[in-house]
Amino acid sequence: MLGLVHDGNSTRLRRDLPRPARAAGEATIRPRLAGICNTDLEIARGYMGFRGVLGHEFVGEVIACDDAAWLGARVVGGINCGCGHCSRCARGEQNHCGARSVLGILGRDGVLAEEFTLPLRNLLRVPDSVPDRAAVFTEPLAAAFRIVEQVAIGSGDSVAVLGGGKLGSLCVRVLARIAGRVAVFTRRRGRGVLPPNVSEYPAEDAAAAQNRGAFRVVVEATGNEAALATALHLVEPRGVVVLKTTCQPPHSLGLAPVVIDEVTIIGSRCGPFAPALAALGDRHFEVDSLIDSTFPLERCDEALVRAGERGVLKVLVEGGRIP
Amino acid sequence: MLGLVHDGNSTRLRRDLPRPARAAGEATIRPRLAGICNTDLEIARGYMGFRGVLGHEFVGEVIACDDAAWLGARVVGGINCGCGHCSRCARGEQNHCGARSVLGILGRDGVLAEEFTLPLRNLLRVPDSVPDRAAVFTEPLAAAFRIVEQVAIGSGDSVAVLGGGKLGSLCVRVLARIAGRVAVFTRRRGRGVLPPNVSEYPAEDAAAAQNRGAFRVVVEATGNEAALATALHLVEPRGVVVLKTTCQPPHSLGLAPVVIDEVTIIGSRCGPFAPALAALGDRHFEVDSLIDSTFPLERCDEALVRAGERGVLKVLVEGGRIP
Repeated sequence: MLGLVHDGNSTRLRRDLPRPARAAGEATIRPRLAGICNTDLEIARGYMGFRGVLGHEFVGEVIACDDAAWLGARVVGGINCGCGHCSRCARGEQNHCGARSVLGILGRDGVLAEEFTLPLRNLLRVPDSVPDRAAVFTEPLAAAFRIVEQVAIGSGDSVAVLGGGKLGSLCVRVLARIAGRVAVFTRRRGRGVLPPNVSEYPAEDAAAAQNRGAFRVVVEATGNEAALATALHLVEPRGVVVLKTTCQPPHSLGLAPVVIDEVTIIGSRCGPFAPALAALGDRHFEVDSLIDSTFPLERCDEALVRAGERGVLKVLVEGGRIP
Repeated sequence: MLGLVHDGNSTRLRRDLPRPARAAGEATIRPRLAGICNTDLEIARGYMGFRGVLGHEFVGEVIACDDAAWLGARVVGGINCGCGHCSRCARGEQNHCGARSVLGILGRDGVLAEEFTLPLRNLLRVPDSVPDRAAVFTEPLAAAFRIVEQVAIGSGDSVAVLGGGKLGSLCVRVLARIAGRVAVFTRRRGRGVLPPNVSEYPAEDAAAAQNRGAFRVVVEATGNEAALATALHLVEPRGVVVLKTTCQPPHSLGLAPVVIDEVTIIGSRCGPFAPALAALGDRHFEVDSLIDSTFPLERCDEALVRAGERGVLKVLVEGGRIP
């Protein structure tokens, strides 16, 4: 079958892939629509040492499984596959199982192919009210919802988001539902439709003296190595900096201000699918303006290139069996 | 009067200091015993840009104030002096008042002198059951108690402490009362009396493969620039790294593991005096073995040198009016 494969050196479209072998308890899924995120771009540059089919954001159709009730279902799915036996898995934390595979990221082929597999327990049915073009955002939107699982945020809070890219824009949409005011510092303003309590500012404004300590919560969603220092400038004493991106370059900064101001820095990765799907079913929750372009699977190598261009938002790939 | 002064370049004993002017609401205090901590050593090297009398750990006697009830009282005192008017102070967070002075650290002369001043509201009376040699540990012990205000720790938890120095040893004593097991990684084992649920290991063991992710909470109390990376190695997914020391050299490390494992890094500074004083009144709570030596105020320049020698624990300075 066709798929986009990273072999450790390069990433290319291959037509000779074997169809995936489905293990017990797993479903074979045909992607209807897949999304490309920055993690895919990093993996294509060698991050995580991954080899295999790229991609982990999808809405698809179950085409094979042992439970007939799932056949033909339109689904989204959690990307972490725990071992099912360890204490982490027993606590429902398969996202942090030490023996986990992660779809398209760690030890498990991803979704940029004609077919892929996931455990049935990872799947959620997509309500009819959520079209594919919205459902494909479930995984990254769940990652944005993870923030509000980790940090108590209320209507009295002012939150800053660094970065108005793919993930930052979703974080903004989630935070705007909960926080009183959201400020986005971004290199590219005026893209996408913003909720009314969101204000955009030029990225360089984040470092301005009047913004020092102005936010109780700061979400870092740029992946830029200097952004943590900027986040620490923006956050108030006893405030929280949420790290949403796996930045490759090492940060170098003195941590004395973290101690003096008793700041909390918290890493934030995958999140809950249910609230993400529910939000995507709300007609007031807008993600369509975040879509840059859609490519057919046969051209998903071009899609990856497009996704890597500076300032490009979400690039989608249409699935389906290739004749 | 006599006092140990950092003038921006050097730190030396001066005999020509004016006695401190007491503001309304303040007490003039004569130190009975003062302690030297690593922050004092850093300040003597230029940290914080402080100029003035060094020192912030003390037990002393009120020798002047507007409220006769405090005259002659044996006291310890919080080192942060808020403006009293801002929203932080209104919330009881004078430790984080943006206009605060901090005893011997920021805009306020410290305790290594014949006399110093503090607001009366910062003072706590020392019970008779707590001798001076214990009471002088109240401030750094309160900083250790701050950890358990910030992080929920229970009897089922395994906690690691990096560093068996002055602050690390106090953190160990506090954590041993609450956590099931405490592991201390230290360059110098066998100093001080340890509670039974505490185990000491050589510092280099912290980096061992079998300790990867072995602790839910890791307290960094070395001030060593490489220690954050070690702490991230030791902490389990979704665990907490507590930074207790204001390390001067910048850390340089990739933060991807913080995001992937959703680790929380939390800065921790000054803490509550009441539980610290209560612990010091408990005969099972031992700090005497942490005392290295005691110098008279006339030789507190030598005390600072001694405190800066590698591996030296708490150096104390006896106060009192100099004839």
